[in-house]
Amino acid sequence: MADFFDVVLSQRAYRALRPDPVSDDLIAQILNAAVHAPSGENSQPWVFVVLTDRAARQQLADLVRAAWDGGVREFARQHLSERFFAGVERWATVGFGDTPVQIVVCGDTTACNESLLPSSIFPATQNLLLAAQALGLGSLLSTLPLLAGQQVIDLLGLPPHIRPMGVVSLGWPARPLKKPTRMPFAAKTFRNRYGNPW
Amino acid sequence: MADFFDVVLSQRAYRALRPDPVSDDLIAQILNAAVHAPSGENSQPWVFVVLTDRAARQQLADLVRAAWDGGVREFARQHLSERFFAGVERWATVGFGDTPVQIVVCGDTTACNESLLPSSIFPATQNLLLAAQALGLGSLLSTLPLLAGQQVIDLLGLPPHIRPMGVVSLGWPARPLKKPTRMPFAAKTFRNRYGNPW
Repeated sequence: MADFFDVVLSQRAYRALRPDPVSDDLIAQILNAAVHAPSGENSQPWVFVVLTDRAARQQLADLVRAAWDGGVREFARQHLSERFFAGVERWATVGFGDTPVQIVVCGDTTACNESLLPSSIFPATQNLLLAAQALGLGSLLSTLPLLAGQQVIDLLGLPPHIRPMGVVSLGWPARPLKKPTRMPFAAKTFRNRYGNPW
Repeated sequence: MADFFDVVLSQRAYRALRPDPVSDDLIAQILNAAVHAPSGENSQPWVFVVLTDRAARQQLADLVRAAWDGGVREFARQHLSERFFAGVERWATVGFGDTPVQIVVCGDTTACNESLLPSSIFPATQNLLLAAQALGLGSLLSTLPLLAGQQVIDLLGLPPHIRPMGVVSLGWPARPLKKPTRMPFAAKTFRNRYGNPW
């Protein structure tokens, strides 16, 4: 049993994951949490492609690496701190390929109005990340792999109505991470009207 | 203490809420959960405008009602089931105005690349909804109020770089709801490639 607020307040983005496999039973618990998210008009427009096979993961990793080398690195270097950049670089070039589970989270454009996809798909994705944290797994949501564009779509065999929206990397943490630090909510919150302090 | 999976697997969209107030302390716990979500490049681009004042809530409710009457009703009637439509109609015309707390969730376009806003704002919003559930409150995420467009922006005094992305209604449930039913995750999940059953 994991306390709800403990899980939510300790969630971290894990870019350093061990290559050890994750059981189908744990993946199932995580996906079951994901599909219990709310969605626009309860349309449940999510689709998950779960890559556990080594060859499939390596092919996706090769696309991520090519996108990184092909321009994403320079873009990231310009606007990330040195330390943050180093972590992303390790993940994009080595860590991603070693990660035992990649879950490509997609939206089905035939399930609802397309304008409802983000507010439906990302709550489900957050359930997925939190469930991983609750089970002791590390996870990371990234949209970077989607910069490889059509090549990712072809690799996964996605039909035109299934739109990839994010990739969740999942595995056992290489090392524990401390609780995250955040700007306090009061610095981001106004009462009744923008500009009035909370 | 609330068990994580209990909370996640019981979350419901509550359209019937009591008008009784919700304490600032509970709202603070919920917003603190929200800001612990992950965000693109840890940019934390969320902004919350929390409407607790009766006049402010009524003004927003009037805009929602006008948008409903001005075309959203007909659109909704065409593609929602009769029962679902009836619930939304009650909420848009009466329930919304009686709700004690409305939280307008916004994205700050100066905090990160705009393409990262949905994958940052909606995970935080899901934390917000789950935290409400963990505390025994009912909540609802809707993008319908944003159909009132510029009038909502003017009412809240939002500057151009603060984009409203969703509205969370918050209050004590008028009646308890059973656990949600969902399509099983396996019906939405493929292994390694689209089309291969999980």
